[in-house]
Amino acid sequence: MASRQREISVSEFFTKNRHLLGFDNPAKALLTTVKEAVDNSLDACEEAGILPDIKVEITEIQPATSPNQPSKFRVAVEDNGPGIVKPQIPKIFAKLLYGSKFHRLKQSRGQQGIGISAAGLYGQLTTGKPVAIVSKTGKGRPAFKIELRIDTKRNQPDVVKDETTEWDKDHGTRVEIDLVAVYRGGRTGVQEYLEQTAVANPHLALTFVPPKGGERLEFPRVSNELPREAQEIKPHPHGVELGMLQMMMQDSGAKTVKQVLVDDFSRVSPAVAQQACEMAKVSPRLPAEKLHGEALEHLHKALSQVKVMAPPATAVVPIGETLLIEGLKRRFPRADFYASTTRPPKVYRGNPFVVEAALAYGGDLPLDEPAEIMRFANRVPLQYQPKACAISESVYQTKWRNYELSQPKGGLPVAPLAIVVHLASVWVPFTSEAKEAVAHYDELLDEMKLSLQECGRKLATQLRAQKHAQREHLRRSLFEKYIPEVARALANILSMPVEKTEKPFYKALPIFVNLGLDEDAKDAPKEVPTGGGAPSVPPPASAKGKDKQLKLVE
Amino acid sequence: MASRQREISVSEFFTKNRHLLGFDNPAKALLTTVKEAVDNSLDACEEAGILPDIKVEITEIQPATSPNQPSKFRVAVEDNGPGIVKPQIPKIFAKLLYGSKFHRLKQSRGQQGIGISAAGLYGQLTTGKPVAIVSKTGKGRPAFKIELRIDTKRNQPDVVKDETTEWDKDHGTRVEIDLVAVYRGGRTGVQEYLEQTAVANPHLALTFVPPKGGERLEFPRVSNELPREAQEIKPHPHGVELGMLQMMMQDSGAKTVKQVLVDDFSRVSPAVAQQACEMAKVSPRLPAEKLHGEALEHLHKALSQVKVMAPPATAVVPIGETLLIEGLKRRFPRADFYASTTRPPKVYRGNPFVVEAALAYGGDLPLDEPAEIMRFANRVPLQYQPKACAISESVYQTKWRNYELSQPKGGLPVAPLAIVVHLASVWVPFTSEAKEAVAHYDELLDEMKLSLQECGRKLATQLRAQKHAQREHLRRSLFEKYIPEVARALANILSMPVEKTEKPFYKALPIFVNLGLDEDAKDAPKEVPTGGGAPSVPPPASAKGKDKQLKLVE
Repeated sequence: MASRQREISVSEFFTKNRHLLGFDNPAKALLTTVKEAVDNSLDACEEAGILPDIKVEITEIQPATSPNQPSKFRVAVEDNGPGIVKPQIPKIFAKLLYGSKFHRLKQSRGQQGIGISAAGLYGQLTTGKPVAIVSKTGKGRPAFKIELRIDTKRNQPDVVKDETTEWDKDHGTRVEIDLVAVYRGGRTGVQEYLEQTAVANPHLALTFVPPKGGERLEFPRVSNELPREAQEIKPHPHGVELGMLQMMMQDSGAKTVKQVLVDDFSRVSPAVAQQACEMAKVSPRLPAEKLHGEALEHLHKALSQVKVMAPPATAVVPIGETLLIEGLKRRFPRADFYASTTRPPKVYRGNPFVVEAALAYGGDLPLDEPAEIMRFANRVPLQYQPKACAISESVYQTKWRNYELSQPKGGLPVAPLAIVVHLASVWVPFTSEAKEAVAHYDELLDEMKLSLQECGRKLATQLRAQKHAQREHLRRSLFEKYIPEVARALANILSMPVEKTEKPFYKALPIFVNLGLDEDAKDAPKEVPTGGGAPSVPPPASAKGKDKQLKLVE
Repeated sequence: MASRQREISVSEFFTKNRHLLGFDNPAKALLTTVKEAVDNSLDACEEAGILPDIKVEITEIQPATSPNQPSKFRVAVEDNGPGIVKPQIPKIFAKLLYGSKFHRLKQSRGQQGIGISAAGLYGQLTTGKPVAIVSKTGKGRPAFKIELRIDTKRNQPDVVKDETTEWDKDHGTRVEIDLVAVYRGGRTGVQEYLEQTAVANPHLALTFVPPKGGERLEFPRVSNELPREAQEIKPHPHGVELGMLQMMMQDSGAKTVKQVLVDDFSRVSPAVAQQACEMAKVSPRLPAEKLHGEALEHLHKALSQVKVMAPPATAVVPIGETLLIEGLKRRFPRADFYASTTRPPKVYRGNPFVVEAALAYGGDLPLDEPAEIMRFANRVPLQYQPKACAISESVYQTKWRNYELSQPKGGLPVAPLAIVVHLASVWVPFTSEAKEAVAHYDELLDEMKLSLQECGRKLATQLRAQKHAQREHLRRSLFEKYIPEVARALANILSMPVEKTEKPFYKALPIFVNLGLDEDAKDAPKEVPTGGGAPSVPPPASAKGKDKQLKLVE
């Protein structure tokens, strides 16, 4: 058996396990390819401080042989980003586990160094065709056109073509991948992904040219401001694991323990480092490489207990309460009520994160259907694996009945409701490399539920006010029903004439005027407020009615 | 930005993404560690033709500092397998993506070359301790004790200790991993995993020593026969991907196209290879390395269309209909009815697979709760991620109402029902490296549904017979209700005395005897059959009553 033991290259592994990367089936493969390319373009533009202008073009290059079969498509994604220097292009596009985003703690869409190479790998596997890249890093500089294959056995790029080309762009990158795929609409389709991406990225100008003569779509830029740049941070002392601490100490060169703590951690001042060392009974001046065994364990424990500030909030960039509602309004413009919440930054396993949620309620949202959930992680819409996602789980676990909504046991609330949850973090823990669903970390789930509860409370206040107004209206209308009788009787007693006019006679009676039951006030209970404020109450009885008041008792 | 681009080692990747490997939380980490070690032991024993004898021991080596905190455990798994030759030990236990199972097509529990090294990685990360292995390959040979760390930056083993030791075993392997964990019972606990493993592996003798003075559990061997050994196969021409075919041709050395087809594929005879080449208009004698572009595409298409036998059924080893029911009976000994189905082998992406299903119904299974699902892949129980699993999905998608069961829309059947589904394949596509759920491949889902439908039909036949018997019983009892009246009237007409005896007088009447409504027969309709046969019907009227028959009409 020993002779058969051998190394497995990561490309071989993911070729066989391509469903782990989101290439389970031809429809999903198309979405994943577009998504990886667009996410990369957005990251590149934002890092370079460029307002992104992205074009996605899908062309059917070979029709299917029979109706239910997949066909061959070419996906081209072009951006106005900073471009990529030539020597980096092969590895970025044709080597799995290579990139700039894995080894840093900074919020970005990509984080694994797998995505775009995996799309190329899938294209190569299904069509045999290389990936084509055109990139230019600035005006006056040459544009390069490079074609790449992945040598899966070695997980290394093979450059098939390498030439200089003309490109009428100042800077940017264009990637073209041929693949066997299926183009589909609906909730898991490319168009849905692009629409949701536009919602979460108001600073993006996007053009989509769908295949088979579909209508070209333009999503013009809504905001000319780039989101605040996420700051790169160091690991936070709370949540660092023993093995990680050990590695940091061993890799420290000539530093002392204290120096490592101060230099390589976030929020550790010299005083805090001193304190942690004292708690652990470790000399702060000990060479870090020599920290082993029990002393290391003590320091690890001390670091989890020492008081430090939360990681800087600047490391994560939420969409924000206002823009979240704007996004929702783009999609559900006719809802009755919107609410949103951005929670304060928290930490899991040393990684800062922010959860935000938003709701749209009522209006033309369907009355008797389960609520619609839109899930976002670092501004990227998640369309697959809702059942495996902590975001969906947080919606299920929220007790929506507390907020005046009906909810079958363990199910989604059944209401005219759309829910958005966004997780922004320097490191989003996905359930698979396909980045389709967020893993169930308790710290994340708790924050998600808290954000939903906050939105729920805002909604409940609103719904209770609505119900109160409806009850008031009912009481009023019951009372009003008997007014004619009372009025007629009173008129009789007072020997007043009972005339039938367009405005019923009894409306002239002081009691009516006094109750505020005139034409305008009658409609008031229907004017339910759509903001977060108190319900609008019918105006008090007009003063002019006061002196005419009828004293029934005398 | 270019300067920050760098390679990511697969160990670094999985350290950061350890939830992908089943180490999301301390409770799951413990289960995953036990599971990876036991799966490896079972595979090793079976491949060597040894009846497995496995001991799992979990010891708490450092109690938790406070109640809700995890503590430190040592997991030790010892087998009587063939042992591992010394030079292989470091890579097998301390290098991710290394092993003998990835590059072959053969049904086994392990398939990635990740699991046990990942458990060691998690142990190292949380306790800083190396993994300890003792292994011996035969009587009279030395036993080696080796301690290992993983150098995560290079994904390479570091041998910390390497010594010869005494071991009173003839051969076998023992692995010890220290880790921060939580020991838990219930559906996702270690004990449940071991119990289900015993169900699916009747040839396994298992001892479990739980931590904290828990009771030692013995699962004695039930069958002394090893499961038939799964045959290793080559890829099947149906389902091979273009890129894969391209690679096979390019790696063929000096072979011709025809030779590659015959040698490297399953079920391709020289005649079939000739036919495929003719269909593709490719010369069979062309050097395989020279097959490119359109010719390659044509051959790929021809291979998907040429008639070939299904892959050999010997490549997959189902549990079998009889043993499946035996397994279910072990767990639900008091159910009323059992059914099982083993489907014929099918192929997805060139991989043969077999789906089998079994049901237990009635008895002491809970009446008003959703059915319980037990999921198995290559005899390994799957305990996490039920919602993401194709097996659960197949249960949801099956229309149980067709089989006389109630089923809420889109939900599980609500009935006293337990469902087992087992997928056996040379390659199980899991939704993540943690191997917790089966990915949604249509071919798999279809077979799963077919297997459930077959079981469902067996159940429905049974339930309909039961209902029929109940209806008969009702009819009979209605009739019986009026017999006294009729009898009294008849007695009157015939001037017979109406006596009140313990056995009511009318029971002596021939009509009663004739209908078989005596004391014994009355209970008959309740004796519902528990096998698969026809309902037991009350015995026909005894012949002795015949001659006494009263002729009512005359």
